[in-house]
Amino acid sequence: MSGRGGRRLAREVAIVGIGATPFGRSPWSLLKLMAEASHEALVDAGIERERVEALYVANMGSVRNNRMAGLASALADRLGVLPAAADTVENGPASGGSALKAGVLAVASGYHDVVLVCGGERMREVSGLEATEFVSTLGHRYAEYPYGVTLPALAGLFARLFCAERGISPEQLARVALKNHDNGARNRRAHLRRALTLEGILSGPEALQNNPLVAEPLRLYDCCPVSDGAAALLLLPVEALTELAPDVNTPVRVAGLGQATAPHAVHARPDPIRLTSVARSAELAFAQAGLRPRDTDVAELHDAFSVLEIAESEEVGFFEPGDGHLALERDETTRDGALPINPSGGLKARGHPVGATGVSQIVELVRQLREEAGPYQIAKSAPQVGFAVNLGGFANNAVATVLSRSL
Amino acid sequence: MSGRGGRRLAREVAIVGIGATPFGRSPWSLLKLMAEASHEALVDAGIERERVEALYVANMGSVRNNRMAGLASALADRLGVLPAAADTVENGPASGGSALKAGVLAVASGYHDVVLVCGGERMREVSGLEATEFVSTLGHRYAEYPYGVTLPALAGLFARLFCAERGISPEQLARVALKNHDNGARNRRAHLRRALTLEGILSGPEALQNNPLVAEPLRLYDCCPVSDGAAALLLLPVEALTELAPDVNTPVRVAGLGQATAPHAVHARPDPIRLTSVARSAELAFAQAGLRPRDTDVAELHDAFSVLEIAESEEVGFFEPGDGHLALERDETTRDGALPINPSGGLKARGHPVGATGVSQIVELVRQLREEAGPYQIAKSAPQVGFAVNLGGFANNAVATVLSRSL
Repeated sequence: MSGRGGRRLAREVAIVGIGATPFGRSPWSLLKLMAEASHEALVDAGIERERVEALYVANMGSVRNNRMAGLASALADRLGVLPAAADTVENGPASGGSALKAGVLAVASGYHDVVLVCGGERMREVSGLEATEFVSTLGHRYAEYPYGVTLPALAGLFARLFCAERGISPEQLARVALKNHDNGARNRRAHLRRALTLEGILSGPEALQNNPLVAEPLRLYDCCPVSDGAAALLLLPVEALTELAPDVNTPVRVAGLGQATAPHAVHARPDPIRLTSVARSAELAFAQAGLRPRDTDVAELHDAFSVLEIAESEEVGFFEPGDGHLALERDETTRDGALPINPSGGLKARGHPVGATGVSQIVELVRQLREEAGPYQIAKSAPQVGFAVNLGGFANNAVATVLSRSL
Repeated sequence: MSGRGGRRLAREVAIVGIGATPFGRSPWSLLKLMAEASHEALVDAGIERERVEALYVANMGSVRNNRMAGLASALADRLGVLPAAADTVENGPASGGSALKAGVLAVASGYHDVVLVCGGERMREVSGLEATEFVSTLGHRYAEYPYGVTLPALAGLFARLFCAERGISPEQLARVALKNHDNGARNRRAHLRRALTLEGILSGPEALQNNPLVAEPLRLYDCCPVSDGAAALLLLPVEALTELAPDVNTPVRVAGLGQATAPHAVHARPDPIRLTSVARSAELAFAQAGLRPRDTDVAELHDAFSVLEIAESEEVGFFEPGDGHLALERDETTRDGALPINPSGGLKARGHPVGATGVSQIVELVRQLREEAGPYQIAKSAPQVGFAVNLGGFANNAVATVLSRSL
């Protein structure tokens, strides 16, 4: 760890407010989506907007897709938190995890006390083809992008190799979508709220009609949708909770943060089915928290493609290599399993407005730790530890977060 | 100050390495520009790349103009600093100031020790018209952008009102370009290296031919050029200097940081010629440093348009309102004046690769505090305090930094 970060923070930081819009095709503008989520987080925390000192916005594409640069300044204006500091953090689909990290370090440094983190994306402002081109800019600029390599294409290549190596059958892979659609169907803010059946995914008439191949072996139901949405978090220093938020509902501490990069081009990685950024970021986050993967009560993983949930569950250390798909088959990761993964529906069913995703993972973990998730609350009572990993690009960057109910 | 940030940091932070490419029309790719500046900063600090824990990249337009999202991950890969954390910070033309702030707070928090900050932009990858549209996305999305309001148009309206209010003559306004071109001509990394004469700006044959109106009363020589370029800084905690950089050349401490937002649409500001974000951010930065504006030995202001240097010199507190253009006329802000402003040439002559600008302001101040600026070194000996302000949008956001040679 030494020499690469992941040390203790000068001040502990708590999440005291959460907010999120529904994900899906939204009639709202990007600013309206983000203002609504932010407002909900402020109300949830019981903090007046005049107290906000800094706003960290997570967004990937507003300059290109929404013709807005300086999005954080625009949101500060719209929300009425001027003259608060305002910055946008971009780390592809891990922008949310990175904005949370920036906000946490700003509080930990002693410089800011009341920090709002808001992630948002309005993907559907542009056409599907444009959205695909936009997301493809995450690939290597010279080795991937100019050859038309899209993220689904990379994921298809990854899935073929990973499933062959692990001996994962189509039925076993389909269980990711099955579980996450079942969860998403119970989450009123999820984009896709339809439960699936194994037959519907694999062989029935529904499968033939609705679940075509996207990039073999990945089918439509293996891929997250293109969503609009926003999510927000309010952060305070733990030492100031009594003064600033005396009536706060179950503050949750950011116990560990980890971030790591990996070779940008997938073909340049020594082992193309390893997600070393995920392993490294999780290791850093658990080390900072003084916890082990097995201490996790609930997790949100970055299942932009179904196969990634299985791979990440191994890289994070939840399961041994080769056991991820078997644990899934044994129902260990359902809402009433030993380690529920993506009880919110994950990116697969909750949706994936890229800048919002990392923030919404944390919002969903806080709901679980507060035991406020209602229809999709996990079965085990009084969960203490939550874990999220958020992927940038095709895992050339990852941000991991450990949350704890104990301050 | 209370309730809006600007408190003392848990750990003091020093700049121990600087690097910058020449600004101008570059044959290099964005990644190459940024890698060169970063490499120079690492070599200057005498720090091995393996020690870099986090990379904060400042950039505004790579997703749109260069077809690269996740630019920070790509730079980490190119530089060979994997698995370091990597994020991009966007705050329009103040992205550089914001990335420095993020890097400083990351070190101050105790989480990271060795942090590289690199700002870069390759503006000239797109046409001039496209670059103008791109920069216009900084305006208000509904009240300015859709009506074709460009940044030069806003600056022209501002200049007309400001000059009328203050009684500034064309000759007095022209002195900003005159001074900054004289400085830039001595800076080998500047974009525009041609000294001007007052006659050449205002009335001679050169003026008629080369200095047309852009947005009355602003002429071409009042506007910064469209530049490519990159700049980089290496940060360490002051407490670890002896261990990590025993041979470092004149570390410079980040003594104060300030950031503030203002109403996004210019017409919505109570007084449209006030730059309240500049006044507020400077006030926060000087307060944190325990210094006053009059303690400043050298400053870099954000003269994207000449009139802004005069307005900012008043907002920051260097001169009383109405005295900025008179101090300029009295030669108080030249290299051998009492308070040299933009000895590097400023945005006006050094150039303005938007993501790089805020970082390059700090690089130039460090050069002056180290007394290594050579032909454009300020006259006063042993300068102790440097100040920079970096503007986002049309001053809807500003980041101010105070540097000190005393640790």
